[in-house]
Amino acid sequence: MTNTRRAISNLPTPCALLGERRMMRNIDRLAKRAEGLGVTLRPHLKTCKSLDVAQRLLTGGVGPAMVSTLAEAEVFAKAGVTDITYGVGIALNKLDRVLALLRRGCRLTVLVDNAPQARAVAEASRAAGLPIPALLEIDSDGHRSGLSPDDPALVEIGRLLDEGGTELAGVLTHAGESYGAVGQAAQTRFACAERDAAVHAAAHLRGAGLPCPVVSVGSTPTAHAAADLTGVTELRAGVYVFCDLVMAGIGVCEIDDLALSVLTSVIGAQKDKGWLMVDAGWMALSRDRGTAAQAVDQGYGVVCDVEGNVLPDLIVAQCSQEHGTIAARPGSGAEVPDLAPGTLLRILPNHVCATAAQHEGYHVLDEEGNVTGYWERFGGW
Amino acid sequence: MTNTRRAISNLPTPCALLGERRMMRNIDRLAKRAEGLGVTLRPHLKTCKSLDVAQRLLTGGVGPAMVSTLAEAEVFAKAGVTDITYGVGIALNKLDRVLALLRRGCRLTVLVDNAPQARAVAEASRAAGLPIPALLEIDSDGHRSGLSPDDPALVEIGRLLDEGGTELAGVLTHAGESYGAVGQAAQTRFACAERDAAVHAAAHLRGAGLPCPVVSVGSTPTAHAAADLTGVTELRAGVYVFCDLVMAGIGVCEIDDLALSVLTSVIGAQKDKGWLMVDAGWMALSRDRGTAAQAVDQGYGVVCDVEGNVLPDLIVAQCSQEHGTIAARPGSGAEVPDLAPGTLLRILPNHVCATAAQHEGYHVLDEEGNVTGYWERFGGW
Repeated sequence: MTNTRRAISNLPTPCALLGERRMMRNIDRLAKRAEGLGVTLRPHLKTCKSLDVAQRLLTGGVGPAMVSTLAEAEVFAKAGVTDITYGVGIALNKLDRVLALLRRGCRLTVLVDNAPQARAVAEASRAAGLPIPALLEIDSDGHRSGLSPDDPALVEIGRLLDEGGTELAGVLTHAGESYGAVGQAAQTRFACAERDAAVHAAAHLRGAGLPCPVVSVGSTPTAHAAADLTGVTELRAGVYVFCDLVMAGIGVCEIDDLALSVLTSVIGAQKDKGWLMVDAGWMALSRDRGTAAQAVDQGYGVVCDVEGNVLPDLIVAQCSQEHGTIAARPGSGAEVPDLAPGTLLRILPNHVCATAAQHEGYHVLDEEGNVTGYWERFGGW
Repeated sequence: MTNTRRAISNLPTPCALLGERRMMRNIDRLAKRAEGLGVTLRPHLKTCKSLDVAQRLLTGGVGPAMVSTLAEAEVFAKAGVTDITYGVGIALNKLDRVLALLRRGCRLTVLVDNAPQARAVAEASRAAGLPIPALLEIDSDGHRSGLSPDDPALVEIGRLLDEGGTELAGVLTHAGESYGAVGQAAQTRFACAERDAAVHAAAHLRGAGLPCPVVSVGSTPTAHAAADLTGVTELRAGVYVFCDLVMAGIGVCEIDDLALSVLTSVIGAQKDKGWLMVDAGWMALSRDRGTAAQAVDQGYGVVCDVEGNVLPDLIVAQCSQEHGTIAARPGSGAEVPDLAPGTLLRILPNHVCATAAQHEGYHVLDEEGNVTGYWERFGGW
């Protein structure tokens, strides 16, 4: 982190701004929830991909942590994180890198949901003389990967792992469909489904004489809505650290919780069309249109003034690679203000994982809106 | 460029593959068209953002070139490109960097479409004693920025530039709406509209006694469809270097012209749903859904085998951050093959500017599918 402490007006545009206090508030909120629920919180680092954020997010800076790529695991392990779960079913061509991380002293746990994968993980473990910790991925909502909790293959695959030389660490599920669940009651139902699927799968394994120490559930919506996690050992979430319009749209957070925005400059206007042109296009905002399916479509993002106050009913209606077109939300009748070229605005993102990924770092803001530093982020696989 | 020459099966997944011969064929095709039309070709470097590609694309490696960010201008200028047009209306906070590039000997031309911007460019030119070359942006299709060719403001703003200490370099237009024009006849109409708008605007300026040496038009669809560019001096295009499914969908290229694909590993399947799971999600493919509005919706991309042969009617139907779900195109009745975990596939992208931007470089393939090198790309602003 560089200590620059300068005015926001000196930043280049477009760039990503991160409100540190909002972020810390989001972090504390879920940490307290997890504590109240009696489970370990395993934050997902795929949203931030930043050592500076991870330091503030992880217990003692060492974990537990979740990642979405081995590149993340490698960077965070190098920085001292010692307990990492890699949340994508392990590709067979990545096993060498998994072993390298284990040898380095980082407990990296992989996901498995099919027999050929289990056999390959077991074979790699045996060949290296190093048991790779593996979780069985459970499907709780038909969203993407994973085994049904009562699939007979669960025991078969669990046995391939347990007897094949790996460490069968337990079960994990993620209710990806909960991102479409509007309101706390609906999210609580997904949280129950996650818990029930994971606990049921754990019982299934244990009933067959297999170990299942870890019972892991979570997504940002379910983590904030779960009321009872009996039988669960850990809770995971990622996007909550920054929050975004998709989460606000389903009631997981308020607009005031959004910690990340994109700073942009007005470069012109098409007054007859009611458009303001800015220098943030999809390269700065991402192509994510996650609110398109919600009750309120936020286009490519909600427009704020430079201080972060929402300009009612102004959205980024269209994007080219480096152009954003700001317009009134259709049907709102809002007036597009006559802002001079050079005016700075901030855009709140639909899906912050996607928007953050378009940037090489975060310009950190304090409560007064001063820039206090720059936190690098990384990408790649 | 690193000379590695290895098998594609040794690459990490996901990663971007670039077929060098297809790329060179695409480059040659448009170079010949421009020659036939009697105009200078100014390739847009926003798609590749790579010195290795630029070297093969630009005349003598020095330009003319087009860029979408000042970061591109700075990187390419440092590498010896001396004639660059920056294709986004200039933000006032970027004028210092423009002047720095001019001082370094790179002729960087900026875009202007409003009076406050023209005044700021003129003032910066005078203050630096260095006339910033500026083009007036013309709107030929209502797509985003620019002045109507017969807008009286054109002369007013032209005069602010010409008399204010900048160098009024001419006019430029881009038919962004041509990306939705299906078939050559429709694209030719957009090419005529671009030409007519630019030539008319040039006449408007000249009629008022203002200089207009440059008359610049172009987009990948119009550049490939223009039949007569009388009065035009230069043609611009970018995406043609790699081509993509959006361009194939409107008939600008064939699937066989797509030079970039994303290599991915099968990590599992949900056989009851007809899904194959792969390790390329939107982080590797981008969130771009540019074919959603076309006659054939390609989801998040078309699936090929590791050699690049299209697997008929298989598309990436859904994406999470690092998961891709491959399924049959709805209604096609195609069978999803039973591919073992570890199988390598290639995904052809909707919009290659967006997909390429998700990667830090290109693994270059020769005609036999051997990896001959790695070309870095860069991002940022």
